[in-house]
Amino acid sequence: MTALDATLARIDSNLDQALNRLFALVAIPSVSTDPAFAAECRRAAEWLVGELRGVGFETSLYPTEGHPMVVAKARSGKPGAPHLLFYGHYDVQPPDPLELWETPPFEPRLSETPGGKQIVGRGVADDKGQLMTFVEACRAYKETAGSLPCDVTILLEGEEESGSKSLPAFLSAHREELAADLVLVCDTSMWDRKTPAITTMLRGLVLEEVVIHAADRDLHSGMFGGAAVNPIHVLAKIITDLHDERHRITLPGFYDGVTELPEDVAAQWRRLSQGRQDFLSEVGLSQPAGETGRDILEMIWARPTCDVNGIIGGYTGKGSKTVLPASASAKFSFRLVGQQDPEKIAASFRSFVEARLPADCHAEFIPHGASPAHQLPFSSDALTRARAALKQEWGAEPVLAGCGGSIPIVGAFKQDLGMDALMIGFGLDDDRIHSPNEKYELSSFHKGARSWARVLDALAG
Amino acid sequence: MTALDATLARIDSNLDQALNRLFALVAIPSVSTDPAFAAECRRAAEWLVGELRGVGFETSLYPTEGHPMVVAKARSGKPGAPHLLFYGHYDVQPPDPLELWETPPFEPRLSETPGGKQIVGRGVADDKGQLMTFVEACRAYKETAGSLPCDVTILLEGEEESGSKSLPAFLSAHREELAADLVLVCDTSMWDRKTPAITTMLRGLVLEEVVIHAADRDLHSGMFGGAAVNPIHVLAKIITDLHDERHRITLPGFYDGVTELPEDVAAQWRRLSQGRQDFLSEVGLSQPAGETGRDILEMIWARPTCDVNGIIGGYTGKGSKTVLPASASAKFSFRLVGQQDPEKIAASFRSFVEARLPADCHAEFIPHGASPAHQLPFSSDALTRARAALKQEWGAEPVLAGCGGSIPIVGAFKQDLGMDALMIGFGLDDDRIHSPNEKYELSSFHKGARSWARVLDALAG
Repeated sequence: MTALDATLARIDSNLDQALNRLFALVAIPSVSTDPAFAAECRRAAEWLVGELRGVGFETSLYPTEGHPMVVAKARSGKPGAPHLLFYGHYDVQPPDPLELWETPPFEPRLSETPGGKQIVGRGVADDKGQLMTFVEACRAYKETAGSLPCDVTILLEGEEESGSKSLPAFLSAHREELAADLVLVCDTSMWDRKTPAITTMLRGLVLEEVVIHAADRDLHSGMFGGAAVNPIHVLAKIITDLHDERHRITLPGFYDGVTELPEDVAAQWRRLSQGRQDFLSEVGLSQPAGETGRDILEMIWARPTCDVNGIIGGYTGKGSKTVLPASASAKFSFRLVGQQDPEKIAASFRSFVEARLPADCHAEFIPHGASPAHQLPFSSDALTRARAALKQEWGAEPVLAGCGGSIPIVGAFKQDLGMDALMIGFGLDDDRIHSPNEKYELSSFHKGARSWARVLDALAG
Repeated sequence: MTALDATLARIDSNLDQALNRLFALVAIPSVSTDPAFAAECRRAAEWLVGELRGVGFETSLYPTEGHPMVVAKARSGKPGAPHLLFYGHYDVQPPDPLELWETPPFEPRLSETPGGKQIVGRGVADDKGQLMTFVEACRAYKETAGSLPCDVTILLEGEEESGSKSLPAFLSAHREELAADLVLVCDTSMWDRKTPAITTMLRGLVLEEVVIHAADRDLHSGMFGGAAVNPIHVLAKIITDLHDERHRITLPGFYDGVTELPEDVAAQWRRLSQGRQDFLSEVGLSQPAGETGRDILEMIWARPTCDVNGIIGGYTGKGSKTVLPASASAKFSFRLVGQQDPEKIAASFRSFVEARLPADCHAEFIPHGASPAHQLPFSSDALTRARAALKQEWGAEPVLAGCGGSIPIVGAFKQDLGMDALMIGFGLDDDRIHSPNEKYELSSFHKGARSWARVLDALAG
């Protein structure tokens, strides 16, 4: 029996214990964007420190200006073994709207469905369940083989859902401690429940909140209506002006650094797009609403976006109130691809807003983070080895996918430390991440851990 | 000593007691738009019933589907005396944002300022202090002369701040009980603190809330952004499309029934507009933002408007959340003038919204009330008598003003019962109605009561 076979058998026999550990982590409401949950974020980090030490990692907890970083190291003891840096995040999205959860978001449970067993709870798929697949693979490997086949460093952050503000400075300060040959990331999805995927493109993200201020107080719309500027109207015009009739974004310079796909990749995505009709219908939609003339996978993987993720102004209670509000605000996000420059886009956006302010209005800008897009070269050797390992576990050729979401650290690793990232995840599109009743398939958790054992083995050479 | 002189002296000597009565009414948080305050609205109505019975009115409390109506009657005993119907409202706007109040909104107090004493509290100017000027005038008249100089019916409603939904049906059902020669309304302002005003034009109001629904759940903007329709963008475009570059409203048929002012009135308003620079600067604005080429008084008195009074969608907490919301909503109000038809405008608005819905979106409409505008003929005999009475009290010629705000019942009285309204109020532009720290000048309250005594006397002939 090879070390890998023994490790896979160990993962199978210890699944219940692994599940209990995941439940303990999900039960901690580590919502990073809301300062009220700071202590819970720290508690999640400390829980992980305890687990990783238990597996035999040399583990440290580093405070930051935001939530703490967990760094854990284990050597293979084999000269020349590759050094892998695994990245995950222990923070989660806010659970609201709470009333739509069938059970409390931080009381994880196992749910029996016709398609198989599911683990339900906030963060179970994004990213607690996913990061634990790697931890459980390492645990099984060490318990059976005594040591890992590669040198492994694990970095777990607590600010991914709120813009990873502390990461750039942390990377700079811990450059040597984090140095490795390749980054492994487990925060992405499978193609479908039978087909694994390796994500080779990640969109970047610029987050900008804008508050438009007008009069110095709320005004009666009867007394002032028709004469006083309405900041909701000003904000609405800015939002509307950001897209043209073909749904292209109108920010000057926005498409600088955006390139078209190579024809072979474009052709593969066109084929895959055909089978993707369910992607929208599953959420009650029927038609792609993005740029005219683009396929749906291109829209979500390889094209940049501009969306308002939240807006508020004036009276929003029940009934009506004839008020002209003093201010109105919106949270904008830009998804970036290729070589788009986050700083330039943030600056262009601010100019765009300023240019649309009528007399007596001013804009307040609140940045919530910025990160570039990332692209793994298709020629990478690690990519080839990982494809073979995944095919063995799942019995299907992995899809080389893009990903519309952002994992800011992936761009930062490339930019600051020169490391590429191999992104393998076991989520499914219907996992309801960021939504009520988030779930993670038990099979994703189980075969995910098995997949990582195989990938570690394959990358060892 | 005439009956009027005795009444005026009585008002002067009883001011402290009158003020205590007003404080008791303002202390009742009768917020009509929020169902949570329904019992408080009823309590305010019952308090008024008690007061009016104490003054000697035959008084009834009528339940409605919303908040109750108070109807009180007192006969002059003089054959041929005119019959006046006084209208006021005991409901108030929500006090939010609470944190901007210097003292609690429903704990009225007297504040000493360099300009004189002020009464502070929610609803003290709109409309509780104003309606009590009439009640106190009646009280003093009856206490000195034994009876009023005219037949008087008082109607007080509790839904003015939330669209007066129960009024049309109530008027129809109580047509005979409410029949009179003229309606008196005390819910308007003076021109300035030395110059009284009689309001001859009131804008109407259409209130429509719209909810735009898209996907059947909130979506992750990374996974779906670029492909899924964003209801905030749809709503922003609707808001933007409602005005053209010259700030005219683009709803088809919107300006049907809107006429230009007679030249003499336009000339008076142009002169008055010159002295109105402080109107905007007092609230931190410098330029009128309405229709290009119109004077400010015309904008707020004689031109129709469209404003969004509230908007909400997506994540509005601290930080960011990369969500594409399932829905977004906005509360629209249209101020109407001349012969604009509220029903036609509501219908035109709904068609306008429907025409701008992209695939996969639908709109939900929630009406919050509709009322036409009102115009008192300049040739009215009652207007001539009231002008003379006010000039005697204030020593200045009253301004014949317009009013941007709506008093839905005024249009309804005209339309359903054929009665014109004489609108005399003692509010000031800096009373902060609908805003935190609402106040009413003690001089408005005192001289307001004296003014009504004079007007009652003058209208008796």
